[in-house]
Amino acid sequence: MKRLALLEAAIGYSFKDTGLLEQALTHRSHSARHNERLEFLGDSVLNFTVAALLFDRFQRIDEGDLSRLRANLVKQAALAEIATRLGLSDYLRLGEGELKSGGFRRPSILADALEAIFGAVFLDAGFTQAQTVITQLYEPMLVDVDPKTLGKDPKTLLQELLQGRKLDLPVYTVVATHGAAHDQLFDIECTIAKLNIHVRASGSSRRAAEQAAATQAIAILEAEFPAKTTRASRHRRPSQLTLPVAVSQETE
Amino acid sequence: MKRLALLEAAIGYSFKDTGLLEQALTHRSHSARHNERLEFLGDSVLNFTVAALLFDRFQRIDEGDLSRLRANLVKQAALAEIATRLGLSDYLRLGEGELKSGGFRRPSILADALEAIFGAVFLDAGFTQAQTVITQLYEPMLVDVDPKTLGKDPKTLLQELLQGRKLDLPVYTVVATHGAAHDQLFDIECTIAKLNIHVRASGSSRRAAEQAAATQAIAILEAEFPAKTTRASRHRRPSQLTLPVAVSQETE
Repeated sequence: MKRLALLEAAIGYSFKDTGLLEQALTHRSHSARHNERLEFLGDSVLNFTVAALLFDRFQRIDEGDLSRLRANLVKQAALAEIATRLGLSDYLRLGEGELKSGGFRRPSILADALEAIFGAVFLDAGFTQAQTVITQLYEPMLVDVDPKTLGKDPKTLLQELLQGRKLDLPVYTVVATHGAAHDQLFDIECTIAKLNIHVRASGSSRRAAEQAAATQAIAILEAEFPAKTTRASRHRRPSQLTLPVAVSQETE
Repeated sequence: MKRLALLEAAIGYSFKDTGLLEQALTHRSHSARHNERLEFLGDSVLNFTVAALLFDRFQRIDEGDLSRLRANLVKQAALAEIATRLGLSDYLRLGEGELKSGGFRRPSILADALEAIFGAVFLDAGFTQAQTVITQLYEPMLVDVDPKTLGKDPKTLLQELLQGRKLDLPVYTVVATHGAAHDQLFDIECTIAKLNIHVRASGSSRRAAEQAAATQAIAILEAEFPAKTTRASRHRRPSQLTLPVAVSQETE
């Protein structure tokens, strides 16, 4: 295990009680004083902090969109990404079995430990300090949040992109099915007639194949038929404001 | 609508910006500046505050139990109960339709408005003030929280109560079914042979009938065969400590 001071530097906070940080890094496979209660606490301080950040940053979007954005920012994959950036793997305390099976790389273990660290900071120094740590770690992600797209499934997103361009809805057609009843594969074609877009994708369910086809259609749509207006969130992105791109700025 | 100062007295906080309180009380049926965004914020500050309260109060219970307790304290019914205690109905701003259909008594509307108030307090005065308001309102409920039972379904609870008495698991038997395939009623008997307990209950599913039977069995069990040890949380209840009950105090 690397020195904890390095991790403290990475998260931007030095613990008064380093025992709390140690506990946050301890998986239940390692010892009885593990991080699960801290994770419970950290999960809720994270949810609240991100809720408040989004509420403040996106003044015009409704509750449903705020919930969707938050769910995406606090989900396991997002947490594991931050944990990886911090090199959290090097500090985890795992039991023998977990060590051997590569638990230090598992997204769930990384995400849980990161949440537990947030809980530990809250216990050690209160809400404002936990908020500061979380905000700093989330800053790079928040800059890129587009409230119109983040966390939407591809079919919904494609539909909205087409509506924004005043085009008809895409048509999904099953072009083939393969395999036996309980192990089928579906080939779906997604057609956007007006733009002469026809893409095919496969999936183990009709819905999965449709989502895969929609993802391809979005890529083509955005590359070949970019929207005339910029997305609403863009005007909040400082980096965007300085770019010499000739697009109109439109708010929601 | 009653004067807001009375409501402020009831929640123990006077707003600097009463516009925020007004918005928190405004249902979407009433006007565009409604309470849904505030509810999103309030829900998360509530979840965090209750998580921290439970973490602090119950030092020995695990993450799963903490989650179960919190879910029960922040659920709609619990919020609506607090809202009713505050007389929130008298302050709500509803549209015509909701007013006529009695929306001011609807648990979902009451619960949402209360969460929105928590969000409004946070915006008006910060986290510590929101925490103070929430803690005061939850105090009466927290005193009665039993971490071993709150929020558990009857079958689980009955099983645990029997295990605690070193007794065999209850047996559930279908004694009759009535009605057609999609509109069936199940009669279930729950038997605890050792104690000679036999209770019957009906339900629209087997599971529902079993839960109803378990509820009855618990009532009989606790009345006729009280546990020899007190429940773990009791020693934290000041009111319990002063009661002249001859039970041993045992921690988990």
